[in-house]
Amino acid sequence: MNKNHFAKTPPRGWNSYDYYDTNVKEHEVLANAEFMAKHLKPFGWEYVVVDIQWYAHNTASMRDQFQYIPFGENEMDAYGRLLPCPEKFPSSAGGAGLKPLADKIHGLGLKFGIHIMRGIPRKAAQEHLPILGTDVTADMVADPASIAQWNPDMYGVQNCEAGQKYYDSLLQLYADWGVDFIKVDDICATGFLPDRSYGRRHEVEMLHRAIQNCGRPIVLSLSPGPADVTESWHYKKYANMWRITDDFWDNWETLLYMFDRCEKWQDHVSMGCWPDCDMLPLGKIGREFGSQRDCLFTKEEQKTMMTLWCIFGSPLMLGAEMTKLDDWTLSLLQNEALLRLENGSFVSKQVLRDKEKCVWCAVDPQSGERYVALFNLTEQAREISVSWQECAQMFPQYTFPEENTRFTEVWSGDSYEKLGGKVAPHGTLLLRA
Amino acid sequence: MNKNHFAKTPPRGWNSYDYYDTNVKEHEVLANAEFMAKHLKPFGWEYVVVDIQWYAHNTASMRDQFQYIPFGENEMDAYGRLLPCPEKFPSSAGGAGLKPLADKIHGLGLKFGIHIMRGIPRKAAQEHLPILGTDVTADMVADPASIAQWNPDMYGVQNCEAGQKYYDSLLQLYADWGVDFIKVDDICATGFLPDRSYGRRHEVEMLHRAIQNCGRPIVLSLSPGPADVTESWHYKKYANMWRITDDFWDNWETLLYMFDRCEKWQDHVSMGCWPDCDMLPLGKIGREFGSQRDCLFTKEEQKTMMTLWCIFGSPLMLGAEMTKLDDWTLSLLQNEALLRLENGSFVSKQVLRDKEKCVWCAVDPQSGERYVALFNLTEQAREISVSWQECAQMFPQYTFPEENTRFTEVWSGDSYEKLGGKVAPHGTLLLRA
Amino acid sequence: MNKNHFAKTPPRGWNSYDYYDTNVKEHEVLANAEFMAKHLKPFGWEYVVVDIQWYAHNTASMRDQFQYIPFGENEMDAYGRLLPCPEKFPSSAGGAGLKPLADKIHGLGLKFGIHIMRGIPRKAAQEHLPILGTDVTADMVADPASIAQWNPDMYGVQNCEAGQKYYDSLLQLYADWGVDFIKVDDICATGFLPDRSYGRRHEVEMLHRAIQNCGRPIVLSLSPGPADVTESWHYKKYANMWRITDDFWDNWETLLYMFDRCEKWQDHVSMGCWPDCDMLPLGKIGREFGSQRDCLFTKEEQKTMMTLWCIFGSPLMLGAEMTKLDDWTLSLLQNEALLRLENGSFVSKQVLRDKEKCVWCAVDPQSGERYVALFNLTEQAREISVSWQECAQMFPQYTFPEENTRFTEVWSGDSYEKLGGKVAPHGTLLLRA
Amino acid sequence: MNKNHFAKTPPRGWNSYDYYDTNVKEHEVLANAEFMAKHLKPFGWEYVVVDIQWYAHNTASMRDQFQYIPFGENEMDAYGRLLPCPEKFPSSAGGAGLKPLADKIHGLGLKFGIHIMRGIPRKAAQEHLPILGTDVTADMVADPASIAQWNPDMYGVQNCEAGQKYYDSLLQLYADWGVDFIKVDDICATGFLPDRSYGRRHEVEMLHRAIQNCGRPIVLSLSPGPADVTESWHYKKYANMWRITDDFWDNWETLLYMFDRCEKWQDHVSMGCWPDCDMLPLGKIGREFGSQRDCLFTKEEQKTMMTLWCIFGSPLMLGAEMTKLDDWTLSLLQNEALLRLENGSFVSKQVLRDKEKCVWCAVDPQSGERYVALFNLTEQAREISVSWQECAQMFPQYTFPEENTRFTEVWSGDSYEKLGGKVAPHGTLLLRA
Repeated sequence: MNKNHFAKTPPRGWNSYDYYDTNVKEHEVLANAEFMAKHLKPFGWEYVVVDIQWYAHNTASMRDQFQYIPFGENEMDAYGRLLPCPEKFPSSAGGAGLKPLADKIHGLGLKFGIHIMRGIPRKAAQEHLPILGTDVTADMVADPASIAQWNPDMYGVQNCEAGQKYYDSLLQLYADWGVDFIKVDDICATGFLPDRSYGRRHEVEMLHRAIQNCGRPIVLSLSPGPADVTESWHYKKYANMWRITDDFWDNWETLLYMFDRCEKWQDHVSMGCWPDCDMLPLGKIGREFGSQRDCLFTKEEQKTMMTLWCIFGSPLMLGAEMTKLDDWTLSLLQNEALLRLENGSFVSKQVLRDKEKCVWCAVDPQSGERYVALFNLTEQAREISVSWQECAQMFPQYTFPEENTRFTEVWSGDSYEKLGGKVAPHGTLLLRA
Repeated sequence: MNKNHFAKTPPRGWNSYDYYDTNVKEHEVLANAEFMAKHLKPFGWEYVVVDIQWYAHNTASMRDQFQYIPFGENEMDAYGRLLPCPEKFPSSAGGAGLKPLADKIHGLGLKFGIHIMRGIPRKAAQEHLPILGTDVTADMVADPASIAQWNPDMYGVQNCEAGQKYYDSLLQLYADWGVDFIKVDDICATGFLPDRSYGRRHEVEMLHRAIQNCGRPIVLSLSPGPADVTESWHYKKYANMWRITDDFWDNWETLLYMFDRCEKWQDHVSMGCWPDCDMLPLGKIGREFGSQRDCLFTKEEQKTMMTLWCIFGSPLMLGAEMTKLDDWTLSLLQNEALLRLENGSFVSKQVLRDKEKCVWCAVDPQSGERYVALFNLTEQAREISVSWQECAQMFPQYTFPEENTRFTEVWSGDSYEKLGGKVAPHGTLLLRA
Repeated sequence: MNKNHFAKTPPRGWNSYDYYDTNVKEHEVLANAEFMAKHLKPFGWEYVVVDIQWYAHNTASMRDQFQYIPFGENEMDAYGRLLPCPEKFPSSAGGAGLKPLADKIHGLGLKFGIHIMRGIPRKAAQEHLPILGTDVTADMVADPASIAQWNPDMYGVQNCEAGQKYYDSLLQLYADWGVDFIKVDDICATGFLPDRSYGRRHEVEMLHRAIQNCGRPIVLSLSPGPADVTESWHYKKYANMWRITDDFWDNWETLLYMFDRCEKWQDHVSMGCWPDCDMLPLGKIGREFGSQRDCLFTKEEQKTMMTLWCIFGSPLMLGAEMTKLDDWTLSLLQNEALLRLENGSFVSKQVLRDKEKCVWCAVDPQSGERYVALFNLTEQAREISVSWQECAQMFPQYTFPEENTRFTEVWSGDSYEKLGGKVAPHGTLLLRA
Repeated sequence: MNKNHFAKTPPRGWNSYDYYDTNVKEHEVLANAEFMAKHLKPFGWEYVVVDIQWYAHNTASMRDQFQYIPFGENEMDAYGRLLPCPEKFPSSAGGAGLKPLADKIHGLGLKFGIHIMRGIPRKAAQEHLPILGTDVTADMVADPASIAQWNPDMYGVQNCEAGQKYYDSLLQLYADWGVDFIKVDDICATGFLPDRSYGRRHEVEMLHRAIQNCGRPIVLSLSPGPADVTESWHYKKYANMWRITDDFWDNWETLLYMFDRCEKWQDHVSMGCWPDCDMLPLGKIGREFGSQRDCLFTKEEQKTMMTLWCIFGSPLMLGAEMTKLDDWTLSLLQNEALLRLENGSFVSKQVLRDKEKCVWCAVDPQSGERYVALFNLTEQAREISVSWQECAQMFPQYTFPEENTRFTEVWSGDSYEKLGGKVAPHGTLLLRA
């Protein structure tokens, strides 16, 4: 299996975290899946991902003090593998795991993903549980000094044969359930380790091998960021997507910073290898963090976000509660001229960036299609333009037409006769040749 | 209680680590204590310190793989307090703890010390044990992200009232046993924390308060180094001694580096506040690390080490198995003219230091006594001298005699008519006016 | 000459910078000196220091663009030594240098100081000028890669014999003029050098030797800060004062930061060795920076500053235009009970510090006098108190009276019966036992 | 002009530095050019580059003390532009500059390049020389704090209009001479600036604009390295090549390090954008550094170097004195099967790398040609192989034949039936499908 064929285009789907925090339940996952199948699948959205703590009991019961209850009770099998909490996932009762849920999602024509923390449960190590298919116990493969700084559940796995067996046993279980996608946390940026921003490389390799060994094409997504761009080769060799910033939320500073990160990662976007701008905090979000709220971005900022994610080629993972989507937000997700940029055949380059503006250009060498995005990074409306020549210089190997032609602005549908125009504060023109 | 009165002069004693690693046993401690009482107590040596892992079962059973067995079995009471392993400390059986041993050591006219890791046992947190005198459990005060990078036993304690109660319960137990000295590990240098070389300040303060609360004058010693000299005020406010380098062993590089560290810490030596150059790896050492060996330092290097420790004012903790001390090594520990520098009334300054040599001068303002130490830092014998004026400049507030007078060299007993002479490779002249 | 005897107490005087920037003129210096002789000399103020650019022509002529005109015209002798600009210092005409001015200041019973940049003029190097008393030219001792990042006048001097001769020639000239104090800039903190916060140690040593060689007891003051506390031994061995922060001005943030720095440097204050909190921006300042203004500190903040500087033992260098001092400001500088702390015999310690408050205690071991300063670091008035025992713990070697006695508050003259009281926002109680 | 069309393939030529240091003379340049025209031009070698100090008098006259004589005499015109030293370049006499030399090189069918330091001469600033076409003087555009740490000739140019005019005047002069290539030094890695490894971005942009303004397609090469990979977009937008390590010489450590750097830069190799592995220190080198010597690399290491440079796509700049090339070395430079990798149409990826070995694969999407390089990084001969599938995974968008086919080893001409074989210590197999 070539892992680059698991995700020929940037994965597109939904993730439970932005709305449900640690506390999503089976029926809520299914309601969102049904919405996706009906309204978004035709536009290429297909992954349904259950985020963190599906194995934990009593999640959200101490919300005022802890996001992750220290040394809380987790459902676990006799081989140190976490299982779904049956109060939240009733269909998992009796050892069925997440298979019944995955089956239903597959039945909708969708794919099923889960979040995991890298490593082996602390409790498995403390209790010296056996590793499936070996005569080694968890305490012998756990690395007692390798822990997440923000989550008390796991120890890192040492780089050893029995450690690989543990990961193999884990992925075999997930393959049995029918998992199509794993988002592995505490692995992509490990800045707490002195001088090592990417200090658990061997666990990435072990996960990659475990996927190969399990025989199911499971997409490997790494979190959190910022990924270290000097390690790009390693991410691309072993993973399918990796976060390029820390958690993204609906404030302008994190969106502005994404422009910097997209500049740095732009040459590392290719089939099976998708630097990840993180989830889209659109629509209704935040309920299980305390109270449901609307996305704080302005409409212009939402279009800017969608444009940047698409022209860069990021995975698209919706954070909204889909069943509550308003029509305007839904239209962002159904814009075919925009989503076309995610078809895997465009080559995109930043053309220029300064404090006031940013310009990207995308070219499909096969079809000859061209897009230019003009982003206004300031709080005032301003004229932004770029010359056709300046765009062309970024693609010296392609033939560009000498003259500017007519353009259609993707969001408004307006016609433009030149590469430029008035752009709203924090807004975007996406011009299609 | 003024903690600075707990250690009016630099503590002087013996520590089990250099010879016994994690595996010292009660009868071995006692044999050393008896030797000390007979041969070294008259020279001011008084502390007998049991180092790391006295609470652990099966220590040294996996020596080829681990110094500290991951998630090994530790003796612990119902309140999450570690107790001595009865196989190693038979007198502790039946809940007596280390009291019988402490009593015997006190009976010899000596003082008793123990090593602890900062924090609360991981197992106590995992098992949600209660904290004595509270209705809080260990999992609520343990900080799941604060761990030693090299030892799997403990979690850090959070800065909260129940956390203080835990440390209070610990020190009350130690006071009940009759402990006079605690060497707390993983607390003085915490370089693994990004940008924080001294990241567990609050646990130092909690230990200090717990000592005050227990009512027994227990010396507080912090390990490992290098302590951060920019935090000197905090160390001095709350502790009695703190390590100024990482573990010191018998190789020239670590000894040479100590000259640099003593330069930096020289103005922070005062009553109750003793920057610590670490244990003296003299005589026979290393048995439980694999095999017993002799100290690798030359005799000249041993005299250099003793001179630097004493003129700087470091605590003196012998690492040798005392019952096997040869006469020459014993004479280093019984040199009264040398040990006089540790009487707490000398003021010492480095006069000069370059790649070849180092000179220190010590003055007792009360008695008018003066010492000058000339250290040869190179591998060739060389003439080293210093002017009386250059020494005097370091003590502008004291009156120095105009003229050089006669000197006695402390190690050889030879007379010198000037402040200088031939110094052996890595050797020292210690001239006493 | 013992350099520690050049400044037995912290130097106290006036510096032209805060009011005159680069552009002070001889008559202005003299007017200030006359004021000092009349009003402040009885209170120990004695140094009159001419700050930066006394050798430069056309200073302040391009103030809107440059503080230091790039490659501007500097007065220089045939040996590459800068001379006073005669337009600003008319008495220097005809080669007299600063001697006539120094003579007048000495005639007032005061001492005379100047500012210099470390190094040799760039122009001397470019023109290959000879070094006095050698057959070497300036280009051979200048270090072309050692420059101030903020001033275009000088190159660093290499660590070589001819370089020492250059510094010797410079100090001989200053001794001939009658200079008593040099403030050397771009030497104390050199953070621009990678990994080297104190990268021109050898030039400090060369300046020290040049002072010894010139035979005149010239105080050596190093600028700018922050000095590196891990290099404290070197500063104390070779200099008399050194800045512990970057430039200090009249805003609360820089004053608040000084509490942190005083904590770190408190054990390095001793005869001839004075960590320097920088000039006091009181009264009228700023004229040659653009326009004259009043000190922006509140009265409470001014008292806090004066108290901290004095209880810490910093040099006191007034930045105000003295001829315009109002009575209230003058009273700060004539407070004998306060200035007594600067007599060189007090030992001072920070007792506690947190985000809200800071407490210092000073003891004179000879006289038995004691002061306690209570600082309010917040913007609300608050009760601050400390126990006599907590102060006493910082001085374990001294006998403290058991009971609190009566205190006089130095600023108000009020009586206090305990160590505490209401303290104004950013204000101070200075209690004298 | 699209700067990416100035260098459609990686520039290939000769540079004077490795043999001549600062002291190459016109007739020596010409002798090398003639050799190139005759023996190497048919293989694509075309640039003749005169490296550093062609404007300096007395170069090499103080070789025992200085590589660059501090504040030495440089030839300069009235507008602060450096001119060739006529003693070294006789044809430049009378103001002809390097035009006569460039003409002769062009007459041989070759291209002509020169080295420059970024910035404006220190002497021009000190003497306030006018900038051509402006009423501004050099002292007003020079940045007195921006200097090379290792060369005393220049100041950086400020980011201002007159500064651009200076660079425009410089490039106009070079265009008049017929320069085809400039290697700009002290600009690509500027690690001396705190926290800024690429701190003179604006001077790169100014040089780019000056080239555009001069109207001649001059290749822009940046030195020294290591370039900062996080700034890849900027390098690619404005320059044609940039060094990815510090100076490369003929020792294994610097060659081994290049594997790491090529991994990091592999996705940034594209038309007009060539990360630069630095000059090839082959054949006879070093004469003007002291004495002529042979390249210290073994033959295997030389083949490894050539293979890595070519499969990565680095520029190739020969450091050898060409007139003294032996046949074996010459054969390295005439190997057509190797040099084919530099034709600009191959896409190359590192397939794997560990401490023992490294494998790269290159594919030409047009022709379907494929190469695999197997590098032995150790000092023992060892079997190295890779699967065809593992190579194929790096190119998911291309179709690879299912089965391995037959291969020809480029260096030996031997046939291989699989992707692997015995590789000599530090040696390489370059297999062509």
